[in-house]
Amino acid sequence: MEIFGYIAGICTALCFLPQTVKTLRTKDVRGLSLISYVVYALGVLCWIIYGCHLYAWPMIIFNTPSFIFALLIIAQILQSKGKK
Amino acid sequence: MEIFGYIAGICTALCFLPQTVKTLRTKDVRGLSLISYVVYALGVLCWIIYGCHLYAWPMIIFNTPSFIFALLIIAQILQSKGKK
Repeated sequence: MEIFGYIAGICTALCFLPQTVKTLRTKDVRGLSLISYVVYALGVLCWIIYGCHLYAWPMIIFNTPSFIFALLIIAQILQSKGKK
Repeated sequence: MEIFGYIAGICTALCFLPQTVKTLRTKDVRGLSLISYVVYALGVLCWIIYGCHLYAWPMIIFNTPSFIFALLIIAQILQSKGKK
């Protein structure tokens, strides 16, 4: 059953890589919810902080890519809003 | 420091509620990555399965809303693709 933990960790760590690539490539952010990505980034950052507190390396390692992808998507949304 | 765990859990559980509402309302799915949401849903489902295995209720409770939101977003994307 441990395998489910690993699949879960890898999937939730990397899931927003395709979204990030798509958004960087197309610059089409109209359908994206800024609030969702801000709340997501905040949540993931809190997991990283909590992981540091617990010295829980998997929690830190699996959440860091998610945080980076979320920041990149947020940056694209804000950049698009700034251009309007 | 426990507070960071709670904030993280609530944020990552509910973060895609605004995205779900926005997508259901606008039907604008062009900027959304289907792969990202499928991988996200798979990851979250694996967390739920793993949580059931560990009898870890917070893991089950916090991941279930995420799974539902992901499914709703995937359904919207597929519905939109079907119409094309």
